[in-house]
Amino acid sequence: MLEQLKQQVYAANMALPAHGLVTYTWGNVSGIDRKRGAVVIKPSGVPYAQLQPADMVVVDLAGNVLEGRFRPSSDTPTHLELYRCYLQLGGIVHTHSTHATAWAQAGRAIPALGTTHADYFAGDIPCTRGLTAAEVMGDYELETGRVIVETLDENEPLHTPGVVVYQHGPFSWGRSPDEAVHNAVVLEEVAKMAWISCGINPDLRHLDAHLMEKHFSRKHGPNAYYGQQ
Amino acid sequence: MLEQLKQQVYAANMALPAHGLVTYTWGNVSGIDRKRGAVVIKPSGVPYAQLQPADMVVVDLAGNVLEGRFRPSSDTPTHLELYRCYLQLGGIVHTHSTHATAWAQAGRAIPALGTTHADYFAGDIPCTRGLTAAEVMGDYELETGRVIVETLDENEPLHTPGVVVYQHGPFSWGRSPDEAVHNAVVLEEVAKMAWISCGINPDLRHLDAHLMEKHFSRKHGPNAYYGQQ
Amino acid sequence: MLEQLKQQVYAANMALPAHGLVTYTWGNVSGIDRKRGAVVIKPSGVPYAQLQPADMVVVDLAGNVLEGRFRPSSDTPTHLELYRCYLQLGGIVHTHSTHATAWAQAGRAIPALGTTHADYFAGDIPCTRGLTAAEVMGDYELETGRVIVETLDENEPLHTPGVVVYQHGPFSWGRSPDEAVHNAVVLEEVAKMAWISCGINPDLRHLDAHLMEKHFSRKHGPNAYYGQQ
Amino acid sequence: MLEQLKQQVYAANMALPAHGLVTYTWGNVSGIDRKRGAVVIKPSGVPYAQLQPADMVVVDLAGNVLEGRFRPSSDTPTHLELYRCYLQLGGIVHTHSTHATAWAQAGRAIPALGTTHADYFAGDIPCTRGLTAAEVMGDYELETGRVIVETLDENEPLHTPGVVVYQHGPFSWGRSPDEAVHNAVVLEEVAKMAWISCGINPDLRHLDAHLMEKHFSRKHGPNAYYGQQ
Repeated sequence: MLEQLKQQVYAANMALPAHGLVTYTWGNVSGIDRKRGAVVIKPSGVPYAQLQPADMVVVDLAGNVLEGRFRPSSDTPTHLELYRCYLQLGGIVHTHSTHATAWAQAGRAIPALGTTHADYFAGDIPCTRGLTAAEVMGDYELETGRVIVETLDENEPLHTPGVVVYQHGPFSWGRSPDEAVHNAVVLEEVAKMAWISCGINPDLRHLDAHLMEKHFSRKHGPNAYYGQQ
Repeated sequence: MLEQLKQQVYAANMALPAHGLVTYTWGNVSGIDRKRGAVVIKPSGVPYAQLQPADMVVVDLAGNVLEGRFRPSSDTPTHLELYRCYLQLGGIVHTHSTHATAWAQAGRAIPALGTTHADYFAGDIPCTRGLTAAEVMGDYELETGRVIVETLDENEPLHTPGVVVYQHGPFSWGRSPDEAVHNAVVLEEVAKMAWISCGINPDLRHLDAHLMEKHFSRKHGPNAYYGQQ
Repeated sequence: MLEQLKQQVYAANMALPAHGLVTYTWGNVSGIDRKRGAVVIKPSGVPYAQLQPADMVVVDLAGNVLEGRFRPSSDTPTHLELYRCYLQLGGIVHTHSTHATAWAQAGRAIPALGTTHADYFAGDIPCTRGLTAAEVMGDYELETGRVIVETLDENEPLHTPGVVVYQHGPFSWGRSPDEAVHNAVVLEEVAKMAWISCGINPDLRHLDAHLMEKHFSRKHGPNAYYGQQ
Repeated sequence: MLEQLKQQVYAANMALPAHGLVTYTWGNVSGIDRKRGAVVIKPSGVPYAQLQPADMVVVDLAGNVLEGRFRPSSDTPTHLELYRCYLQLGGIVHTHSTHATAWAQAGRAIPALGTTHADYFAGDIPCTRGLTAAEVMGDYELETGRVIVETLDENEPLHTPGVVVYQHGPFSWGRSPDEAVHNAVVLEEVAKMAWISCGINPDLRHLDAHLMEKHFSRKHGPNAYYGQQ
């Protein structure tokens, strides 16, 4: 079942090491078929070099395995919570990419400092609060999804297509698995740039509001004029 | 038309990812045929992996598309403004290369700290002022070109073959598309070196004036003796 | 003798440059056959590009060469001390990987700041004390092993599968040569992340205790649920 | 003439981009045949991708071109001064490698902080004083050689096989062109490590004297026991 989506999710997973975002098995991509309510996700702990499209695991939105000989990623409950809350999402990515994770460990939102950031994110990339001991000892991966939703609050998730989870690492998403990977690459790159900028000028100010609005709307607004349509 | 220039501009565009200067479609190169008043530039938002020489777009200096099935880069008005003001330019590059962009985000000129810098730039690499809200909301890409011209002021552009645009990123140029790419590579490398040098020694002083003059003139002056002619 | 272990140790050694952990000959991996009391280790100073499985040297736990036309790594006495003290070790790695070595030179433990770290190390990655002049001038490589054991103190070595030796560099280990290399890769990556995190937020706090416990036990505890078994 | 040395010097030059030490033509290697008093060096400004062994230029110790269709590197007078002063040198390298150049720009010696450094350099890697305006405006490249000699002072050059020239970049050397490249790679790597170490711990102390002595003599002393002889 879902052969095309499995192929897409497989290709998106393989794009993570190709973009230098993962070491060993530290990342996963999922995609969803909304009509069937079925999510395709990477199996847990299988090395990328051995991964095949047929290894992708299919689960329903409650987490029941529908198909697959492997166990799904241990982060599956986080993905499912986001799919349940945000119907506009088609793909989700989790990595431990170096610079984004460094911001997560620092407990700081990645500030919007330039147009590179504003082309994709309509504001800072938030850092979640820390989970409580009860949340961590309870249904940890589900609580991770919940704290992401709590952090996004009233924000449109496609305008804030990623966050860093406190002391953990980045999650990103998009309308498809491919777009979610694209946003993971952007998140890592703007995390690196922001680190360097803050080192050069510790008194750094945020991106001017009119530049933020211009760049984000140039690509994402109703009058977008970047690209070919 | 302009098949040779299209081939040059195509090759120069492909050199950007080869030198690690662009992620996805975050960069563009143009070249000009001064006799015909025609500028060849990368199409907007087309992935490098799919780009072909025939995809290059030809526009006149007023921005009218003369040939091409794609829309030209959204940064075309910036390129055109520079070609109109500086008749000595043959090629222009824009990227979001990591370290140069970090200086742009920091709102700081890249200081001339060594001979690597002085071999190409006859002084600091300036950072433009921020655009006003009116400029950003108006003809944004044209205003970006204007603020670069304002920043260069009385400087010979071939002696300051690049700037960083405040909170945005680097533009560079040269007598040809190839030379513009070369200067983009240099700009990124000296931006990285300057970041590290300032971290090692926060009280860093500028390059001695005689070293600056010696190195720049050794390569670019009337008595240049570097290289084979 | 020990052809299979030689092949494993050879492959583990070749994985070091493949993962970017070594420059020239600055690293070595060993593995042990506990039944025979025989340790297989890289020869000293032989370039990786020329290395063959048959070049691996076999020594006993007292350091006597049992087989091999080359001299064993000069770090052999360090490896042997660790094998003698910790019967649970099957493989050991030493490198001068950039960021781990930078922490060793800084004389600082690598603080546990995030879940990437906690997935492999049950606490900070300790930095040994400096060796005394007498220890350095005496049986230096043996003393290096002893100070690692002194540093681990009461810790289970498989829960702290690596340390940085003061002003020297990292050692890591595992149940097999492969696992020791895996831990060397992790050690380098968390060293890099910790450096960046501390730069972003100098007032950084340690990873919350419940996150540390959760992530370490998720992979290593009796109820581990990461991966496929 | 000197076909074997040309081949060695060619291969050593090609090793610079292979090790990531040069951008474009920013580096050069030479080698000397002491019997003939002839130095083989890279031609000036020729791209590495086009370089052939036959392109190497042969000069005598006074700088007269003995053979070659190209002009020798503009840095040739620096190399010759070092060959004239230090008869033990067989090869010399100059690069603008990123981290070593950053220390040169910072005007700081690269401090000996660990055993990686001590395995090759018997102390700090010195930074020369700045050249005076008269020196720069005079015989600049010769004066660069002279200030390196002045900086080494009483040090044995094979025990300090490299320096950084103030606001310029690194020079290194060895008994052969290959060894000079090896030392250039080491210089860049220890420069990177030292930068990171100083960022982690600004109150960093120098490597303990006994570790310095032990590691340097382990590889270079009369009782060296590293490697295979």
